[in-house]
Amino acid sequence: MRKHGYKGRIVPVNPGRDEIFGEKAYPDLMSVPEAIEHAFIMVPRDAVAAAIRQCVEKKVLTATIYSDGFAETGEEGRRMQEEVMAIARAGNVRVLGPNCIGILSIQPSFALSVNAVLEMDHIKPGPFAIVSQSGSMTGGLLSRGLGRGAGFSKLISVGNEADIGVGELTDMLVDDPHTGAILLFLETLRDADRLAYAARRAYAANKPFIVYKLGRSDIGQDLAASHTGALAGADEVADSYFRAHGMLRVDMLETLFELPALIAGQKPASRHRVAVMTTTGGGAAAVVDRLGTFGVDVVAPSDKVVDNLAAKKIIIPRTRLTDLTLAGAKKEIYSAVLNELLASDHAELVLAVVGSSAALHPQIAIEPIAEADRRGKPLAAFLAPHAETSLGLLTNAGVAGFRTPESCADAIRAWRDWTAPVEMPAADAKKLAAAGALLKTMPGSQINEYDACKVFAALGIAHAATAVIEKPEQAAGIEFPVVAKILSPDILHKTDAGGVVLNIADAAALKAAATQILTRVKAKHPAAKINGILVQRMEKGLAEVILGFRRDPQVGPVVVLGAGGVLAEIYKDIAIRIAPVSLVTAQAMIEEVRGLAVIRSYRGLPQGDCAALAAAVVAMSQLAALDGRTVNEAEINPLMVKPEGKGVVAVDGLIVFRDN
Amino acid sequence: MRKHGYKGRIVPVNPGRDEIFGEKAYPDLMSVPEAIEHAFIMVPRDAVAAAIRQCVEKKVLTATIYSDGFAETGEEGRRMQEEVMAIARAGNVRVLGPNCIGILSIQPSFALSVNAVLEMDHIKPGPFAIVSQSGSMTGGLLSRGLGRGAGFSKLISVGNEADIGVGELTDMLVDDPHTGAILLFLETLRDADRLAYAARRAYAANKPFIVYKLGRSDIGQDLAASHTGALAGADEVADSYFRAHGMLRVDMLETLFELPALIAGQKPASRHRVAVMTTTGGGAAAVVDRLGTFGVDVVAPSDKVVDNLAAKKIIIPRTRLTDLTLAGAKKEIYSAVLNELLASDHAELVLAVVGSSAALHPQIAIEPIAEADRRGKPLAAFLAPHAETSLGLLTNAGVAGFRTPESCADAIRAWRDWTAPVEMPAADAKKLAAAGALLKTMPGSQINEYDACKVFAALGIAHAATAVIEKPEQAAGIEFPVVAKILSPDILHKTDAGGVVLNIADAAALKAAATQILTRVKAKHPAAKINGILVQRMEKGLAEVILGFRRDPQVGPVVVLGAGGVLAEIYKDIAIRIAPVSLVTAQAMIEEVRGLAVIRSYRGLPQGDCAALAAAVVAMSQLAALDGRTVNEAEINPLMVKPEGKGVVAVDGLIVFRDN
Repeated sequence: MRKHGYKGRIVPVNPGRDEIFGEKAYPDLMSVPEAIEHAFIMVPRDAVAAAIRQCVEKKVLTATIYSDGFAETGEEGRRMQEEVMAIARAGNVRVLGPNCIGILSIQPSFALSVNAVLEMDHIKPGPFAIVSQSGSMTGGLLSRGLGRGAGFSKLISVGNEADIGVGELTDMLVDDPHTGAILLFLETLRDADRLAYAARRAYAANKPFIVYKLGRSDIGQDLAASHTGALAGADEVADSYFRAHGMLRVDMLETLFELPALIAGQKPASRHRVAVMTTTGGGAAAVVDRLGTFGVDVVAPSDKVVDNLAAKKIIIPRTRLTDLTLAGAKKEIYSAVLNELLASDHAELVLAVVGSSAALHPQIAIEPIAEADRRGKPLAAFLAPHAETSLGLLTNAGVAGFRTPESCADAIRAWRDWTAPVEMPAADAKKLAAAGALLKTMPGSQINEYDACKVFAALGIAHAATAVIEKPEQAAGIEFPVVAKILSPDILHKTDAGGVVLNIADAAALKAAATQILTRVKAKHPAAKINGILVQRMEKGLAEVILGFRRDPQVGPVVVLGAGGVLAEIYKDIAIRIAPVSLVTAQAMIEEVRGLAVIRSYRGLPQGDCAALAAAVVAMSQLAALDGRTVNEAEINPLMVKPEGKGVVAVDGLIVFRDN
Repeated sequence: MRKHGYKGRIVPVNPGRDEIFGEKAYPDLMSVPEAIEHAFIMVPRDAVAAAIRQCVEKKVLTATIYSDGFAETGEEGRRMQEEVMAIARAGNVRVLGPNCIGILSIQPSFALSVNAVLEMDHIKPGPFAIVSQSGSMTGGLLSRGLGRGAGFSKLISVGNEADIGVGELTDMLVDDPHTGAILLFLETLRDADRLAYAARRAYAANKPFIVYKLGRSDIGQDLAASHTGALAGADEVADSYFRAHGMLRVDMLETLFELPALIAGQKPASRHRVAVMTTTGGGAAAVVDRLGTFGVDVVAPSDKVVDNLAAKKIIIPRTRLTDLTLAGAKKEIYSAVLNELLASDHAELVLAVVGSSAALHPQIAIEPIAEADRRGKPLAAFLAPHAETSLGLLTNAGVAGFRTPESCADAIRAWRDWTAPVEMPAADAKKLAAAGALLKTMPGSQINEYDACKVFAALGIAHAATAVIEKPEQAAGIEFPVVAKILSPDILHKTDAGGVVLNIADAAALKAAATQILTRVKAKHPAAKINGILVQRMEKGLAEVILGFRRDPQVGPVVVLGAGGVLAEIYKDIAIRIAPVSLVTAQAMIEEVRGLAVIRSYRGLPQGDCAALAAAVVAMSQLAALDGRTVNEAEINPLMVKPEGKGVVAVDGLIVFRDN
């Protein structure tokens, strides 16, 4: 703390020492004469509770607990953590950690941390604030940033987040005048609502809010769960969550430091065309090829750009790669082309790639890039050679310089994916009230398909005509052909139980089918309660989809749309959004599900009723706003999509309440 | 050339100068008194032909042409290139280029290049040889390698490869005693057979042969086509090609320099389990999470490893991440754990991750890694902080050090994917002869489904029982239900022409259907030649697949297996291999097609006849070895896969000959 310039009082507490580094040491907190604002606790795990008790007694405002062995280690540790927290909460002591390596504030100076990077003599001040769930990575992150010429405001390890978490800290950073960009290293999400709130405030304050999050693979999720003591959720849900709240997520670690300059002062663009200029065709292609795999739109120069440059006797090709080759090895030419691209409205981002001159002759291209009149347009520079000095020049000029073609493409993709925080659509109060009223009449923790479809209908999703008959000879009043299914709360797998007959053509066949179903089911499940036989009109569509709603344990309500059938399941072809969603978002989800190409006029196939499908997605997502009993999970599978103008029809469904 | 140590004679040729850098200059090549071995030509495009004529006259062995404006610019350039090459070929002058920036040999010294990197005073000698289709990237590649402490033997820009190409050059490098690893930067493939031959020799000589190739996306393929003048092919085909010949392909540019040390002295492993140790949980998780997305198997330590370490009083967890945390911040502990993992047979590769100590205290973990007894096992080290010095230490120790978690995972994936060059299976001469004999009897450039299925049957692939009737009243002798289709070389879209009737239950229905087909087709296509009506037994299977064969313009014959139907097409779910393939390869292809989960007992679905499907893949791939007329393309679509033991049945097919 002294080395890094802390000016305040430091009070060592250690029962075995009278003095530490020239400061008088005390045997316990109560012996300290003056008031204490912040205590850093590094004692064996079993002594932490006693230390917190001292903090309570001494009215310490905040305690940072370095000690580990708590929730991150399993059940016993979790219990001990809860014990410590109960004492802290009762005594109004706020806690950072446990299992955290502390806080480092560069501006103002406050190095309350055991981070090994504090062995450095000086940490460059600057706009980056890092909050990390991994303590051991904070040093690596700082060191990587410094290695790229970046400066820092704060570096905070949050450990187990037993009290103060990523959300609360980032919310403070939004108001921190020294912080210009908030960078997160996350293993999981523990307080998604608070974090979302902070991210939205950061968005309004024009502070880039960028996330690197582990858990893309199953094993990554396992690791997150095992070494931080938190539950992990599906990665796609996390993605939707970040986007819904205006955060940017990077795929590569270095992008975390390279992206902020690209989006500083920016808002998400409405179009995402990228203009590329280069002195090395191969180097630019390495970035552009990767952009292609992400579906980023790389555009050729406009006629105006070509003409304006021709007027200056600079001839550029009309291809998507403005390759200056050797001609570009002159400052005036590089500069003229770059500024023309930046000034043009045919692209929303300019990517400038530099070949060997970046290492040997920065005046040729690096200086024009550093000095360019960006006119508020994002400018990315990828340097093909090893050119650390030039990367530093770009950092100082506030230009986003990239060391690898991959992180450059990753950053441009993140920019393309960036959206303003989504406005949560207003609920349709009337429909929600109708659905809520229906749900009140439905007992049990799970609602069968017959009742579930009624609830979906109340929300505005049509279902196949259905009736329940109690005896085989009863008329159902449903237009043939129909399907007959056993209706029983005790039978989960109706087909296996012989409880389903498809394609019933007339009344006689229905009677026979119902008789057969009852005989088979009673033989297989003599004790099952039978509520009758469900008779449903057989529906056909252009495509079957799965439409679901659930409360994710990390991010809360989400709506999920997927192609139906076994192949779609194999290909994991789904779109997920935070619920509720607007019609526009629902339409975007339909576009996103690749298998739904079959209702989007793919190869001349007939167009499905995408408007009705989008309306159904919106309706399903409204379950998030329902008062009364909490719906934990709901699904329509399949929902049949009919030709344009003919709507969608729910054929089977389910609603599950939250246990409470 | 002088600065970089070339000892031989240098002869400038320039009509406007008498002397250049102290050497006497000549107005033309014929005025030079002595013999010339290698000419470097940098004159305007239109003067290149004359320069080559001088080379022919002077009996120059090789000419490197720097001048551009040839095939890479379009049709006119292509014609001029052919003109230049015709002169060179007739005069026995070998040509490198045109549009290439030359050759740089560090050992022995020979800097015949205009590469800007030659401005450096010294280029570190070492084992890496680079051959690049992008001239402007060679400097960037060299500079990146040098920046990582690597040394080089050769650096060759091949330009348009009008004569000497990547294959011939890499073949020479296999025999170059200064070259230990061959690294390629490719935009396309121009002489795949020669390159494959070189790669196989490199494999036998234990020289890593590593490829970075553009063209993963459509736009990347466009760029390759437009700026090198070569046709681009599907990226999956290139992947299969590299693997079949023992090459490793990296996805990220930096991996090109980081991978060689990982596989130096290695052969492909038969299992690919990865053990991970770390002092930073978050840093290791960044690599492991990515490995998870690639499906790489990360394993927990064996009991023996845990017990052996416990005997040394080192307690490690039994989880997949051997996280030493602070305990690992001691050299003895890091060293003991690392050597135990390297000695154990529970994993085939060890990944050692190092936290902040990598930057601040290399003695703690970097030294143990550099000094470890690797026992022939690949060892990868990822350093979480910015730690250039430590990366250099690892390079000098011959350990694969990685700067980013992503390139580390990319290298481990490449190691996992690496296979020995595939032995081309022996052809089934008898079946090939039978198929060849049949093909001789079939005129035209394209063979219809009836004849194609006969050819496939000769190769060993069963097809649906089929007969041709000429008149509606004729009996077909095929078991019902059947399908009837018009048989006409003039009708491509049979269904549109009203030429197909499905699900025909008996002889009367067949007669009616045949009558109807003839009436409809004659009305729509009065001039079409009708060869009769094809009557085929209606076949059902557990799954429909597409089985294809084609000659790729870049890599030659390939066999393709894909799931059938429109969804599989949308998901691009195919497996491709260089043909012919062995049964083992065919089985691997079936595993690779995700949609074929439906015949691999997915979710209790019945098992399909994978053995018969694999045999069919092998049979189709044999078309590569066929004598006589060259089959350019063949396809069975659909091939029905029946339940285990019931075989596969071709329902429709096509064979197209090469135009020649």
